[in-house]
Amino acid sequence: MSEKSKKPNKPSVYKPKPISGFPEWLPEERLVELKWLDHIRRTFESYGFASIETPSVEEIDVLLAKGEVDKEIYVLERLHKDEDDDKDARLALHFDQTVPFARYTAQHFNELTFPFKRYQMQRVWRGERPQLGRQREFYQCDIDVINIDNLPLAFDAEMAAVAYEVLDGLDIGRVQMRISNRKILTGLLESMDINDPVPVTRIIDKIEKLPIQQIENLLKEEKLSDNQIADIIQLAKTKGTKQDLDAIEPKNDKMKEGLDELAEVLDNLSHLPSEAIIADLSIVRGLDYYTGIVYETQLLDVEQFTGSVCSGGRYDNLASSFINKKLPGVGISIGFTRLFDVIRQSRRDLMNIGPKCPTDVLVYTEDKDLKETTNITAQTLRKRGFNVEVYDTVKKWEKHFKYAKNKGIPYIWYVNGPDTHEVKNMATDDKKETNPNDWNKDE
Amino acid sequence: MSEKSKKPNKPSVYKPKPISGFPEWLPEERLVELKWLDHIRRTFESYGFASIETPSVEEIDVLLAKGEVDKEIYVLERLHKDEDDDKDARLALHFDQTVPFARYTAQHFNELTFPFKRYQMQRVWRGERPQLGRQREFYQCDIDVINIDNLPLAFDAEMAAVAYEVLDGLDIGRVQMRISNRKILTGLLESMDINDPVPVTRIIDKIEKLPIQQIENLLKEEKLSDNQIADIIQLAKTKGTKQDLDAIEPKNDKMKEGLDELAEVLDNLSHLPSEAIIADLSIVRGLDYYTGIVYETQLLDVEQFTGSVCSGGRYDNLASSFINKKLPGVGISIGFTRLFDVIRQSRRDLMNIGPKCPTDVLVYTEDKDLKETTNITAQTLRKRGFNVEVYDTVKKWEKHFKYAKNKGIPYIWYVNGPDTHEVKNMATDDKKETNPNDWNKDE
Repeated sequence: MSEKSKKPNKPSVYKPKPISGFPEWLPEERLVELKWLDHIRRTFESYGFASIETPSVEEIDVLLAKGEVDKEIYVLERLHKDEDDDKDARLALHFDQTVPFARYTAQHFNELTFPFKRYQMQRVWRGERPQLGRQREFYQCDIDVINIDNLPLAFDAEMAAVAYEVLDGLDIGRVQMRISNRKILTGLLESMDINDPVPVTRIIDKIEKLPIQQIENLLKEEKLSDNQIADIIQLAKTKGTKQDLDAIEPKNDKMKEGLDELAEVLDNLSHLPSEAIIADLSIVRGLDYYTGIVYETQLLDVEQFTGSVCSGGRYDNLASSFINKKLPGVGISIGFTRLFDVIRQSRRDLMNIGPKCPTDVLVYTEDKDLKETTNITAQTLRKRGFNVEVYDTVKKWEKHFKYAKNKGIPYIWYVNGPDTHEVKNMATDDKKETNPNDWNKDE
Repeated sequence: MSEKSKKPNKPSVYKPKPISGFPEWLPEERLVELKWLDHIRRTFESYGFASIETPSVEEIDVLLAKGEVDKEIYVLERLHKDEDDDKDARLALHFDQTVPFARYTAQHFNELTFPFKRYQMQRVWRGERPQLGRQREFYQCDIDVINIDNLPLAFDAEMAAVAYEVLDGLDIGRVQMRISNRKILTGLLESMDINDPVPVTRIIDKIEKLPIQQIENLLKEEKLSDNQIADIIQLAKTKGTKQDLDAIEPKNDKMKEGLDELAEVLDNLSHLPSEAIIADLSIVRGLDYYTGIVYETQLLDVEQFTGSVCSGGRYDNLASSFINKKLPGVGISIGFTRLFDVIRQSRRDLMNIGPKCPTDVLVYTEDKDLKETTNITAQTLRKRGFNVEVYDTVKKWEKHFKYAKNKGIPYIWYVNGPDTHEVKNMATDDKKETNPNDWNKDE
């Protein structure tokens, strides 16, 4: 078909626009995202966590096995569905990596070695109405350790150490992890003959967001006495080091167990900077299934993001919906895309945006007869570990310099003759003679 | 809640099963998959391709902008949808990375530098009835170069070189890339006054799958003469080197242009092994939108997989549905998950399945008082780049050896005293004294 014959029925142009809640980045932003993801993966692996990936979908019955969830779920339907589709199990996109991990562990139980340490860095989906800082599609970076029957408390400390190392290594200012143990508040409530801790836990979960007067009123609605309310709030306001915990008088064995466990975890983390990890008894992780140690993490130098960037905890029995085994575990999850997007939008200075491509060297010649030398030069440099583009032209453009500059390529390599090569450092404007076997980046 | 109070209303167990068409791997398989994906990414980057990721979904209008597609599309619906949902654009999972790439290029046109070289390694979804070798969710690894108005033919050669280097580096036997140019057959057909090449192209696309008699019959149904059929089949059966192309008499300018371009691309690839890249004029990529050079790739040593593992081609104007610019490009796509799964199921020997985790060293002590030394040892080794697990016990297990053996961890590190350390090589059973600052893996 010639260009001419096409024009009469040229299709109309559909101008695409961003889809709310489904973010995408420019190449130079994506390079930073990849650097962050690589750092996270490397840190997880340095502690021996093994990668798994689960499908993006689960059967709806799997997602709802623990009862109705508070997350909005996306169900899949084929555009041209037929009657056979109604016979198949309904599939939905996973809304976190915890349910899929529990299902995976149960399904492959006999082929796994325990304790099973896994990391998972995938996209998850939530069909929420988009709002600031909420996405419908986002990456989570999770680690969990799961074992049969029991799991040493050392892993609860390891979780915190890994998460701190990950976030600290992103160079986005000071990071503070706040740790508590659900047994402490639950123990206190049991000592008051309150055996369902859930309503009070949900209120305490809001202690940082609401004025204290409102917290007191909410607790009053739960029919607690003024003394009880005072005791609960005093406990929840405890923050600090292991020594601050010593001042607390345990009311029963459960509360004592919670305090002892928390002290042991803090002990195990004493090699980290003193501001890095603190005890904070207001942390309860309201709606989740945790039974012991719980974590939240805040960025102290990013005011725009006061929420927790990394949360998790210990659970007694995560996979009980899928297998008749007791499988206790402890895990932590980084809300990666949310973290990345907040920094991208509000603290872009912390991202150190660099080039638009991974290229180290742009190889260029003005002489058509040197084409082969040019290609061999590029290939030699690639074999030595450099990322190399050859600048190809149809006609003699003078655009190679602009191209390197715009993309942020740090070196241009000029092939002037079979053995006459020059390399230009774009940052310093220096140009020097070289050859592909000996050249190295300027330090 | 005590264990006891839980038992009466213990929830029933939902035994999970695999979902057809949505594969997942065991940790030891996933480690091989990661190694392959890392190799692919490294190779793409060594040629200067920049990573992008697009959302998993597009608006349905974007996916169908070029007209109805032959792929089955998954549409998203919220489980608890409300009337507002009907007002929103309908979203569907992307079925390839080409349409999203075209949309991305159009949408961010002013922020990109051209020629734009990008790679994309994401999952795509197709709601097909699952069958052997067909998945509903799978990774594709794509590279494309796109430019404004025109794009040098050197990039068509670079595509083939990158794809060959990627597949050859996976160590799955001999790889052969077969290249043609659509202009050759189209030119021949135009010389016969056949101006719509599509019906004949679709038939020639099947030349490797059907007996030649059947191909002839199909062409007869298109009202071609015996002479025309003979000429077409003779052309399509041409296979070999640049010299074999020289024997073909071009019937018009278009056919000559096609042959010249193909010869130039082969010339540019002469540094590769002679069996690696061949001309094969039966390659037409039946249903796709290509206008010039086209590629397919076969594994010569994996009989179980006769299809193409890596295909692509040159297109004049990919993004014309989304922007009023002429943007020619060339691209190639590796059907990664299909390739991986075929090797996994039928040539497992080629996978070199190794350990179940990335751990290099398992650090262990029998003495509780040496806990801190153990942790410091692990941290020192991690800082030196090793992946290290500490084996933690509640009571004194004798299980650390079995754990290391089962997971394939190559070294056990025994902390016997503050400065008395021994390391055991699990492969050789050798044990020697060492310290964390000087130790290195045995060569």
